[in-house]
Amino acid sequence: MFQSAYLPQKISKKEYHDRLPDLREKLLKVQHLLQTDKSFATIILLAGLDGAGKGSAIARLYEWMDSRYLACNAYQEPPTEEERLRPEMWRYWRDLPARGETAIVFGSWYQPALRASVMGKLSDDGLEHKLASINRFEEMLAHENVLLLKFWFTLPLEKQQVRLTQLKENKRNERHYLQEWSSLKNHRKAEIAGEKAALHTSTGYAPWFVIPSHNSNYRDLALAETIAESMSRKLDQKSARPVAAPAIIANLGSVNAVEAIDLSPVKPKEEYKVELADWQDKLANLIDSKAFKKRSLLCVFQGNDAAGKGGSIRRLTAPLDPRFYKVHPISAPTEEEKLHPYLWRFWRRIPKRGHTTIFDRSYYERVLVERVEGFCSEADWMRAYNEINSFERELADSGIIICKFWLAISEGEQLKRFKEREEVAYKNYKITEEDWRNRLRWADYAIAAGDMVDRTSTRYAPWTLVSSEDKRHARIEVLKATCIALENAMSNVDGLE
Amino acid sequence: MFQSAYLPQKISKKEYHDRLPDLREKLLKVQHLLQTDKSFATIILLAGLDGAGKGSAIARLYEWMDSRYLACNAYQEPPTEEERLRPEMWRYWRDLPARGETAIVFGSWYQPALRASVMGKLSDDGLEHKLASINRFEEMLAHENVLLLKFWFTLPLEKQQVRLTQLKENKRNERHYLQEWSSLKNHRKAEIAGEKAALHTSTGYAPWFVIPSHNSNYRDLALAETIAESMSRKLDQKSARPVAAPAIIANLGSVNAVEAIDLSPVKPKEEYKVELADWQDKLANLIDSKAFKKRSLLCVFQGNDAAGKGGSIRRLTAPLDPRFYKVHPISAPTEEEKLHPYLWRFWRRIPKRGHTTIFDRSYYERVLVERVEGFCSEADWMRAYNEINSFERELADSGIIICKFWLAISEGEQLKRFKEREEVAYKNYKITEEDWRNRLRWADYAIAAGDMVDRTSTRYAPWTLVSSEDKRHARIEVLKATCIALENAMSNVDGLE
Repeated sequence: MFQSAYLPQKISKKEYHDRLPDLREKLLKVQHLLQTDKSFATIILLAGLDGAGKGSAIARLYEWMDSRYLACNAYQEPPTEEERLRPEMWRYWRDLPARGETAIVFGSWYQPALRASVMGKLSDDGLEHKLASINRFEEMLAHENVLLLKFWFTLPLEKQQVRLTQLKENKRNERHYLQEWSSLKNHRKAEIAGEKAALHTSTGYAPWFVIPSHNSNYRDLALAETIAESMSRKLDQKSARPVAAPAIIANLGSVNAVEAIDLSPVKPKEEYKVELADWQDKLANLIDSKAFKKRSLLCVFQGNDAAGKGGSIRRLTAPLDPRFYKVHPISAPTEEEKLHPYLWRFWRRIPKRGHTTIFDRSYYERVLVERVEGFCSEADWMRAYNEINSFERELADSGIIICKFWLAISEGEQLKRFKEREEVAYKNYKITEEDWRNRLRWADYAIAAGDMVDRTSTRYAPWTLVSSEDKRHARIEVLKATCIALENAMSNVDGLE
Repeated sequence: MFQSAYLPQKISKKEYHDRLPDLREKLLKVQHLLQTDKSFATIILLAGLDGAGKGSAIARLYEWMDSRYLACNAYQEPPTEEERLRPEMWRYWRDLPARGETAIVFGSWYQPALRASVMGKLSDDGLEHKLASINRFEEMLAHENVLLLKFWFTLPLEKQQVRLTQLKENKRNERHYLQEWSSLKNHRKAEIAGEKAALHTSTGYAPWFVIPSHNSNYRDLALAETIAESMSRKLDQKSARPVAAPAIIANLGSVNAVEAIDLSPVKPKEEYKVELADWQDKLANLIDSKAFKKRSLLCVFQGNDAAGKGGSIRRLTAPLDPRFYKVHPISAPTEEEKLHPYLWRFWRRIPKRGHTTIFDRSYYERVLVERVEGFCSEADWMRAYNEINSFERELADSGIIICKFWLAISEGEQLKRFKEREEVAYKNYKITEEDWRNRLRWADYAIAAGDMVDRTSTRYAPWTLVSSEDKRHARIEVLKATCIALENAMSNVDGLE
């Protein structure tokens, strides 16, 4: 999840200094307004990887906000003597800010659970149980007029490595408090625990925001702007509450994971022929294997119009036995389907054991075309991310292997293909007025696709982003990713769960 | 929980026949309206103890409603061959009713989890994890215009015994399908699992209703009236959604557990003196014991005005060391307390290890005086049940032993005591205008107290209902219950967890 947060997001010095004055003014203004009308309390909760710069970000907040009305509460593991004499949540309750006040929480009620989970001292069920009770606590806070903003600081492994080395060498950073559970050697585990928290505790009343922490200016600006924006929204329309959705990446308008796909790879024709045959053989063997009799495969294809979904699907199904697979092209729902929950028609088509189902377009249209064209309300497509994650989780838990492909092409390449479709008679049926209309909203679709990938790329159902600028490259990538997913799943190579 | 549902609730033949025509008309009317406007689908989910009469209740529904538009979907454990080839939830998705339709679900998505939990095949954490994912599923249904009504059929052990014997002997009931997990020998475990479901899955969008199944006419009427009422409300104000609260007992206006307290017991003075000394000694020993150093005690006193809370508390604290206990009389919150969540002032006062805290009135005022006098909105006091249950759960999990007492007197006895307070000079401070005002709303307070006991009497923090018509009786009962709770907790006699 949150692929876009791992991109080397940064901001130029100039832009940083241009944005700062407005931001500081806004921060002080909302703080002052809150201080006066006392309509709610604010909690700024910081969590995430060790070395991502939570401490430095707080220092900046203190610089930018009125520090007289800003309390910072840090909690350590293990708890103090006094704390251990009382229930776990007591220390957090004791320090809850009064309405009108703002508190920063460092080492929050997530810490003991995440830490125990990473350290292998809490089962998966145990963690989910904890997270469910955290949800109840946070729902109560929301009802009791506490605005809770939760931030997850993240950065890629290599970058974390560099940061921690710098910190070690830099004596001025003696105050840096190392959290073992989210340090280097637990990088991946901590990310997974964070992903779980984001999946199950990013609610309408207490959303998570992911802070890309590559670049410190970017990080601090993203944090402070999210705070200012959220507080000001709450001050304006005091009761507005969006629906639950996975964490939102606090990005400053930079490119997302889908926009960042490298479209340059090309597969020469001769190589293609050989590799195609190899991968198709491999796929046939995997699907014919004894192990697959107990599993099933679901492939989902989405992508830009004319990206070549159909062609890739045909190369994928070529080596398969037609009795055991089915391709479902998804268009508008029927009247009967409209009378049921939108996932109903997909549940009816999931593969049974030993079978393969391929969706050419899918339930993801909910967060793509339906979002962009306004066919459903914001609340409806926002909740769809969690609903889809739950749906795929159930499929995965029952043994279905899920491969999701986003096939990407450039705007120019699309234009070329559209024209070709218009000109070549037998390709004519493939192009409609609607395709041209969608093309006008290229940027909106790119944002929607990026959000989709960030919010629904889970360990049990990851997205594979494929450049389809060269169709042969795309076809090989799809076959390869499918084979690898099958292989890993059937030999349980994942290694983490 | 749901004490009131265990009372021998019944309805006279005459009342039954008087109410039936209107009920049937209403049922047909809502069904027809729904059929026409197709604004939502209805699912009637039946669960509960074996032998409580779910099958017979369905037969009645079929008689009373238009059976052409009523589907009945029963699911068995273990699932069929076809079902086992797909994810667990597939069979339920397949049968989801379309908007406009009504489906009865028998052996629902709760069954596998509850069954596994009762049979010891699912840990506590595992059950809560399952329930959390059920919540996500049901929230999605609500968003997708499915009205989900969940009914838990319950009856006391003795009654279940009689019913099952009758069923065995009665050859006409051959179709009766025995669910082993909720049969006689698992009575208590099934009730506990049901209680957990009610605590964590009775949400604003999909509430549980408890059906007292002592008497079949009462049972069927309570079921059908709840259905008619819920469907008609949904037809009227299509989006209204109350907050989450523990299951609601579908009672037909009969007395609740608090109103049913037997006020006759009297403790003669001589016996009282002996027993008081004995129990106080016992209490002192328990509190002085080594085991208590690792625990703590929280006692909560609520009751009718003038029921004698103060007197009982003094008898309880008499044998205790003042350095280790504290009595907190609870009145209106201070200005500072008002700026925090309402539970904040109680969290601050919970006992630390080895200590005792006594609340003379408590956070329960939220669902008593604040509810009855309208000091907070219905949504606020409705969510308080769950919030209080979560709060007490956290205390209990950390080792705090919780005893809650409801001290009851009759209206007549209260009048006598009020007058005495007015007449006797040194008792004068105890009576105010407010007491007289509250007395006028006796019936409202009784309903509020009954709901409170039904919804917050958990295994980890049970209510003890005490008649205080005779003060000596009450004092002994309070001491006795406290000693027994301490003893059980410290020797882990509970036996069930």
